[in-house]
Amino acid sequence: MQTRWGYPVNDRGHLEIGGCDMVRLAGQFGTPLYVVDEARVRANCREYKAALQDTLPGAQALYAGKTMLNLAMARLIDEEGLGLDVVSGGELYTALRARFPAGRIHFHGNNKSLAELTMALEARVGRIVVDNEDELALLGILCRRLKVHQDISLRITPGIEAHTHEYIETGLLDSKFGFGIGDGRAKAAVRKALGQRELNLKGLHCHIGSQLFDLAPVRRAVEVMLAFADQIRRETGWTAPELNLGGGLGIRYTAEDAPPTVAAFVGAITEALRDGAKRRGFPLPALVLEPGRSIVGPAGVTLYDVGNVKRIKGVRTYVSVDGGMAENPRPALYSAKYDVAVANKAGHPPEEVVSVAGRFCESGDMLAWDVSIPKVERGDVIVIFATGAYHYSMASNYNRWPRPAMVFVRDGQAELVVRRETYEDIVANDVLPVAMREQRAIVNA
Amino acid sequence: MQTRWGYPVNDRGHLEIGGCDMVRLAGQFGTPLYVVDEARVRANCREYKAALQDTLPGAQALYAGKTMLNLAMARLIDEEGLGLDVVSGGELYTALRARFPAGRIHFHGNNKSLAELTMALEARVGRIVVDNEDELALLGILCRRLKVHQDISLRITPGIEAHTHEYIETGLLDSKFGFGIGDGRAKAAVRKALGQRELNLKGLHCHIGSQLFDLAPVRRAVEVMLAFADQIRRETGWTAPELNLGGGLGIRYTAEDAPPTVAAFVGAITEALRDGAKRRGFPLPALVLEPGRSIVGPAGVTLYDVGNVKRIKGVRTYVSVDGGMAENPRPALYSAKYDVAVANKAGHPPEEVVSVAGRFCESGDMLAWDVSIPKVERGDVIVIFATGAYHYSMASNYNRWPRPAMVFVRDGQAELVVRRETYEDIVANDVLPVAMREQRAIVNA
Repeated sequence: MQTRWGYPVNDRGHLEIGGCDMVRLAGQFGTPLYVVDEARVRANCREYKAALQDTLPGAQALYAGKTMLNLAMARLIDEEGLGLDVVSGGELYTALRARFPAGRIHFHGNNKSLAELTMALEARVGRIVVDNEDELALLGILCRRLKVHQDISLRITPGIEAHTHEYIETGLLDSKFGFGIGDGRAKAAVRKALGQRELNLKGLHCHIGSQLFDLAPVRRAVEVMLAFADQIRRETGWTAPELNLGGGLGIRYTAEDAPPTVAAFVGAITEALRDGAKRRGFPLPALVLEPGRSIVGPAGVTLYDVGNVKRIKGVRTYVSVDGGMAENPRPALYSAKYDVAVANKAGHPPEEVVSVAGRFCESGDMLAWDVSIPKVERGDVIVIFATGAYHYSMASNYNRWPRPAMVFVRDGQAELVVRRETYEDIVANDVLPVAMREQRAIVNA
Repeated sequence: MQTRWGYPVNDRGHLEIGGCDMVRLAGQFGTPLYVVDEARVRANCREYKAALQDTLPGAQALYAGKTMLNLAMARLIDEEGLGLDVVSGGELYTALRARFPAGRIHFHGNNKSLAELTMALEARVGRIVVDNEDELALLGILCRRLKVHQDISLRITPGIEAHTHEYIETGLLDSKFGFGIGDGRAKAAVRKALGQRELNLKGLHCHIGSQLFDLAPVRRAVEVMLAFADQIRRETGWTAPELNLGGGLGIRYTAEDAPPTVAAFVGAITEALRDGAKRRGFPLPALVLEPGRSIVGPAGVTLYDVGNVKRIKGVRTYVSVDGGMAENPRPALYSAKYDVAVANKAGHPPEEVVSVAGRFCESGDMLAWDVSIPKVERGDVIVIFATGAYHYSMASNYNRWPRPAMVFVRDGQAELVVRRETYEDIVANDVLPVAMREQRAIVNA
């Protein structure tokens, strides 16, 4: 028997992921628990590689670390041969600590600090994706100071509204990110970059949005970027060798969601790229994509222990779990919706409509509204699906609640990749000021 | 010279808080930096105490720890003689580590775990505010097991819509919190609590909402709770000795906000309480309030270093700072608005309208839209006001960005109360799984 997420129900009637019994896992590692189906992450990586290499040899995928990164994830991504897109010193540090090959790291961000740029230069990252004029100038100075040359690309704002019909190009330039094409900044930046001997301009980058279901804006982005590259070529003689179109492929959170497949997404881009390049007589640039959510999102679930079940007759049933907006802020941030199951009743049919409440002191702390599940009671194990991306990476210690552990599951084995925080971790950075020293003496006693 | 937040501008033209130069502070402790005006926090505590004691002897205020809690804050609250409202094991642990007197701690939550209840019982906290039937039963069992008696109160859902006209009482019972009056659960809970020998029922609790500007719903809550207490008295003979009305007083985030004063808020409650009790011949219960935001919110600011300034002619100026939605998720979560100043140009008049962008890789990562400030450039120090509540407490490591330090400032002295996280902290709980052991050997080498 299979659940609608494609995971089997075992002899005990429990949900199994990666050959592991989710009820047993909750008991072994505690709850809330982030569980990542390692085989599925690897399969998603391979799907991108296959889709890219089948159509455009030389094309590559970089995993977007901001979706979910830790030492184990960095190693997994390296093992799969993908590159890595990092957006901060902390992500770069994580990658380097995991011995991720620096040459396959691209460093992004609208406001990289001097310390971060220095760190990236010293690590010899593959690309620094320069966001703005200031950064271009700073990078030149730092390169001269450190006596290094650096491969860069430029973040371009193509003026595509990802969620809107393609001809409504409002917000054309109104972005904190990148060099706008519309106001001439992009062109000026290319000229400036080409004039800086320490910087090797390797390509152009854009990213039009996240959780995309519609491929039309993606195709349009390819067109806009190619048109820009072609114009630059005619005016400067520089032919962009690389075109990075960012990430953005949406995933299924609930049954209502019907995102394109990886093959369809990549296919739309490669087709638009081939066609557009051919039409313009532009040498086919090396394509780079930066998937994150679509690699790790569907491969993650979160397990919760059911505590209080509050049945208000004729109104609603609140099922309270031992987590909430701290380890999953997406419902509060984006009104995100999720599918829910009961791991220890995976074979039961839906019996009631409930809302899953978090344990945090805020009425907005809800994980799911009005989901159909088997009759639920204290001690059941709730599973929330598609929590691999932007959950662990966005988790807080709200209510001074320790953040969950994370395990990778594969072939019936579960491996801890992030330790659960302790109360001691919560106070680890607290310091008592001088004026409270008498009390400090007591506390430390 | 004074700024519109009441803070002086010093001889250097810099903003001063607690006698400390904010520009110097940013240099000394780095940015982003949470700064708390200690004298102001203490003054706010005293304002509550005075307002309560002037009108109702025996009334007390508990500081709501969820707004901002660490060892230093717990000590400060103790020094000011307030009680403490905690909502998790982590907050309780923090309080106990700071040697906060357990008898003045009230423990809240809609889904306290057995471990948390045990911890609270063993610590001998002043009150456990019981949220639901399950918890009442569990608490009885735990008390018998531990051979202790525990003072409790009951969280009641009065069915008041705080942000709506008072007679539109929709959502009467639809809350994850508490025992509803409307469906008879509250009354049943009182009877059940009175029947449990291990539990001493000391009072009733409610909380109708947060960031309240309108006092009418607060007065109405007093009425509803008194009417309920009176009905209970007539039916059971039990006279509620204590009435806890929670917190909720709003604060000023921008010039448009005009919250009631602490005196007006407390005055409205005490007046409604006196009048309602007198009218019913009900013995005046001891009043408890749980202010959080109104104590620490206005006393905090966050300092940022300005990085890239992107002036898009005719569109917008983006001022990027070295923080954003990770240490201040409120704009993304609640569309919260803030006042902004430039600490090193505190005496300058407003010269341009800018939007303050965060450094995180998300277009929604904005700290303020369209604020008027002096002409700003790289290296300036941006101040965002009223960030004392729900900033540090809700901060994440999104983009694996280390969380800021916090300092208390007073009389020209700045004391570190929370250390800035390091990159090493970011990976501290990461573990490499068995399947990656070869790599682990390399990493640990």
